[in-house]
Amino acid sequence: MKITVSRKAHFNAAHRLHRPDWSSEKNDSVFGKCNNPNFHGHNYDLTVSVTGEIDPETGYVIDVKILKDFIKTEIEDAFDHKNLNVDVLEFKNLNPTAENIVVVIYNKLKAVLNSNLELQVTLFETPRNFVSYAGI
Amino acid sequence: MKITVSRKAHFNAAHRLHRPDWSSEKNDSVFGKCNNPNFHGHNYDLTVSVTGEIDPETGYVIDVKILKDFIKTEIEDAFDHKNLNVDVLEFKNLNPTAENIVVVIYNKLKAVLNSNLELQVTLFETPRNFVSYAGI
Amino acid sequence: MKITVSRKAHFNAAHRLHRPDWSSEKNDSVFGKCNNPNFHGHNYDLTVSVTGEIDPETGYVIDVKILKDFIKTEIEDAFDHKNLNVDVLEFKNLNPTAENIVVVIYNKLKAVLNSNLELQVTLFETPRNFVSYAGI
Amino acid sequence: MKITVSRKAHFNAAHRLHRPDWSSEKNDSVFGKCNNPNFHGHNYDLTVSVTGEIDPETGYVIDVKILKDFIKTEIEDAFDHKNLNVDVLEFKNLNPTAENIVVVIYNKLKAVLNSNLELQVTLFETPRNFVSYAGI
Amino acid sequence: MKITVSRKAHFNAAHRLHRPDWSSEKNDSVFGKCNNPNFHGHNYDLTVSVTGEIDPETGYVIDVKILKDFIKTEIEDAFDHKNLNVDVLEFKNLNPTAENIVVVIYNKLKAVLNSNLELQVTLFETPRNFVSYAGI
Amino acid sequence: MKITVSRKAHFNAAHRLHRPDWSSEKNDSVFGKCNNPNFHGHNYDLTVSVTGEIDPETGYVIDVKILKDFIKTEIEDAFDHKNLNVDVLEFKNLNPTAENIVVVIYNKLKAVLNSNLELQVTLFETPRNFVSYAGI
Repeated sequence: MKITVSRKAHFNAAHRLHRPDWSSEKNDSVFGKCNNPNFHGHNYDLTVSVTGEIDPETGYVIDVKILKDFIKTEIEDAFDHKNLNVDVLEFKNLNPTAENIVVVIYNKLKAVLNSNLELQVTLFETPRNFVSYAGI
Repeated sequence: MKITVSRKAHFNAAHRLHRPDWSSEKNDSVFGKCNNPNFHGHNYDLTVSVTGEIDPETGYVIDVKILKDFIKTEIEDAFDHKNLNVDVLEFKNLNPTAENIVVVIYNKLKAVLNSNLELQVTLFETPRNFVSYAGI
Repeated sequence: MKITVSRKAHFNAAHRLHRPDWSSEKNDSVFGKCNNPNFHGHNYDLTVSVTGEIDPETGYVIDVKILKDFIKTEIEDAFDHKNLNVDVLEFKNLNPTAENIVVVIYNKLKAVLNSNLELQVTLFETPRNFVSYAGI
Repeated sequence: MKITVSRKAHFNAAHRLHRPDWSSEKNDSVFGKCNNPNFHGHNYDLTVSVTGEIDPETGYVIDVKILKDFIKTEIEDAFDHKNLNVDVLEFKNLNPTAENIVVVIYNKLKAVLNSNLELQVTLFETPRNFVSYAGI
Repeated sequence: MKITVSRKAHFNAAHRLHRPDWSSEKNDSVFGKCNNPNFHGHNYDLTVSVTGEIDPETGYVIDVKILKDFIKTEIEDAFDHKNLNVDVLEFKNLNPTAENIVVVIYNKLKAVLNSNLELQVTLFETPRNFVSYAGI
Repeated sequence: MKITVSRKAHFNAAHRLHRPDWSSEKNDSVFGKCNNPNFHGHNYDLTVSVTGEIDPETGYVIDVKILKDFIKTEIEDAFDHKNLNVDVLEFKNLNPTAENIVVVIYNKLKAVLNSNLELQVTLFETPRNFVSYAGI
């Protein structure tokens, strides 16, 4: 009997879509306005979903306070009010598209969660654009 | 060709997370503020999702009015403006965590729905915390 | 490693639920207020979700601008500010229930998307009623 | 000491923006897609705000159940699942722009509310377009 | 040149609408389901709006972090995960209707804010019912 | 008889709160994380509200398409996917706090709107923090 427990979080960050090994023209043609060299930014909204059995003792799959703390220490403290390209190690050589960001977040949270819990992460770059990753 | 039809609903209720067989200290340490002996409460938001084939006669998987009525009689009439621990039979001996509530809701709705329809229930305890159960 | 990229869109339209081969009484009994011969209408909200591998060159599964343009040309230009029953070819002989509309939208988008991408479409008829279809 | 009590409601309706005394060209030029002769439609969202003193007996400015019932009988029963141009008397000779609809709603509710209560009505035609009227 | 700065917050609480000096019948007739002796509850959402001049040094009317801290210490710490009738001093002899709660919140915040700032408080009891108070 | 017509819009931008005439310590103490020298960013949401008489010819206070176009040319084209501090002239010597941004937006829109229309602008920096300005 598997239940999914989800927690929403958010962080505000600047970023730029850009490949240094491409010409300026190719970067503009692929990434358009997102290639602004001075950066732009987003309020990223995050939904972290953890699936597992209910612990019959507590009635919890995972204590949401614990999940909230994992998200704070692993993601919010690392990404909030940051420039993803400049301030965040994982994007030094990785273009911070929403797709790449959601994989990074998945991997950081997967590393700290109990291994018998399944994980899915959804990241809203804007209220109308979002991406999901479940590790498969 | 399977379509999922979803209907949102809600109910307002008081609850307390507590195990009578645990000491007061253990209850506080596991359930924190949710163990307030005088109860606290939530506006619970519910999404009920039913999956099946489209009836070629009506163009419906299920008439949403029928689904809305099932949710009203099975869930809203039973839970709305209630104290889950005190007023609702299912939680007399079951701690009303979001996980346990979503399983109770699933079971109550599954019992009245046509058996060839799949069911998934999502329950928001707050706008940022929610749980889902699909019967597996 | 599969990522799902989603884009929200919307269109405003009039419609009526009705079968010309049924009596007026049967139409009223099955479709109720939705059978108003003068039509009623909705702000339809749409979420289009595309699943595939991340292109290692661009960091994209699909460029959201391309997805947005497909939705505009295939769906919004065809359905927005229209009467679905009268103005839209697909519903000349198909009752525009939410279930039938979401299948039509799925088929129109599937035809223009790269065939190695999976597709799921969710259509909100109202903020509380919505349907999903993933082609299976 | 004045408190404002607000209640949200909604109705789904078809409409068309059109003046029969104008040429087809002028109607198209002023009302664009909204002049579709076959109608289009919206999920209209409504916020009704009533301002007055708190009754020291009940602690209410107005019982929200009473306000909800007024909105149902005066507005939802009259407008929901209707074609505003064809089915609703007030728009027989009045173009159903959002501005004109909000004035009609204001006047219908003002007529049934206790005269010592101030009224403001906000009408969302879409999630991004809305109008307000307070009777002055 | 006056700017209004608003901050949203929330708290979860149980409450009951009831007057001990009224008969059980009168309480039921006026307060209906809200008179459940075992309490029910809500996720209360709060918008606190502060109006004043922009400080030319900082570009702030008020530092939102300071406003957030006032809301936390004065309102969230006092009301969150509480039973308003039982646990909160201000409602020992005051019926916790939304109207009365918003006045209590206004008064608690007004006492700690700089006196040259105007204040308005909006309290959502449910997503569809809310009240506002601006001190006049 | 005055009606308010509102239109929502949005733009994504990077910014930094900083005064070059202050020490690094003072900037950090006043602006905290918002002083990150590498910038951070937001999805800014904007509500533009225009108040005036209904034109009896059209039934409009202002054609929302015209209002939408003003917002696009004056605000979205100037601010979207930009670094406010670096790319936007108005903030070359003005700290881009939400308060200062909303005044700049107000002034840009006021200059192009018909002078007999009143204007109010609300700017959401995050879903929980927002500011409003009405020119007085």
